[in-house]
Amino acid sequence: MSDSPEPTVSSELIYKGRIVSLRVDEVRLASGRTRKREIVEHGGAVAIVAVDDQERVLLVRQFRKPVERFLLEIPAGTLEEGEDPDACARRELLEETGHSAERIERLLGFYSAPGFCTEYLHVYLATGLSEGAASPEEDEAIELIREPVSRALELIESGRIQDAKSQVGLLAYLARPLQQP
Amino acid sequence: MSDSPEPTVSSELIYKGRIVSLRVDEVRLASGRTRKREIVEHGGAVAIVAVDDQERVLLVRQFRKPVERFLLEIPAGTLEEGEDPDACARRELLEETGHSAERIERLLGFYSAPGFCTEYLHVYLATGLSEGAASPEEDEAIELIREPVSRALELIESGRIQDAKSQVGLLAYLARPLQQP
Repeated sequence: MSDSPEPTVSSELIYKGRIVSLRVDEVRLASGRTRKREIVEHGGAVAIVAVDDQERVLLVRQFRKPVERFLLEIPAGTLEEGEDPDACARRELLEETGHSAERIERLLGFYSAPGFCTEYLHVYLATGLSEGAASPEEDEAIELIREPVSRALELIESGRIQDAKSQVGLLAYLARPLQQP
Repeated sequence: MSDSPEPTVSSELIYKGRIVSLRVDEVRLASGRTRKREIVEHGGAVAIVAVDDQERVLLVRQFRKPVERFLLEIPAGTLEEGEDPDACARRELLEETGHSAERIERLLGFYSAPGFCTEYLHVYLATGLSEGAASPEEDEAIELIREPVSRALELIESGRIQDAKSQVGLLAYLARPLQQP
């Protein structure tokens, strides 16, 4: 880290959890002063814009404890340690929606909140869908909802879809020059 | 919380920080079983798509310790306690870029990572810009960069802009039926 513009002087692990950990780094600024940086560690995640042959996008509705409400989102999930993001995208799509995809391609990726969190999220486009049975994790109560892709912008602008990964994924999909690969 | 689909059985505050806090809630699922939910608390933030009279968007380049790299982002900042998001948007635009805006309008908002974090981010469009002097916080070393709005999609697709708020803000701006208010 000695080449870092903010070299770490000391680092304290506050909490090591299942999904996130928290550490506080003391860093040296260019001025020579030191500052504390609160850093949420997260192993990364994937999200999937899954579009069926009738041009409908698969959405999942689930309760999100941190924000104490139900949210309508694109399917997503956390990378397991060492897991390939492509494989994770296929796994999460199947687990949450029961769908397999003939084609999985990377759309883009992003840091969720780089000011305080390490999470990087890979966004995929899944097409050539075939339906089987969903198998959500025991603590996931997920409802599958299909919406025409043509309504995606309206769903975002009206506030029905209000999480970062779903907005990025759908807006990026809509911005593609050709919507069919 | 008794009406919550995941009522809180117990809650432990692990850390109370300057930007984030961390708590672990034990919640009761519909099945009757309990689960731990790791929750990062964040007071909310704003981000600003600021477009000047020459159709250039203002971007800021700064080092982000959590991801240990420089990122190119739209201006943004954390809400102070009780602060109105509109006022925060004007304040952060001025502090980070030295620009004032004649017009500030809300584009949309989103939860950054609702699976584990409470943060909600308000995204604004700022136009009618006039330039003054920036006044970043002492620990912010920020470089101002202007890019034609017409290049925004290319900057995202090429991976030069890779944080959620910048992608959402720019893609939402580009998706508007009319780009001039």
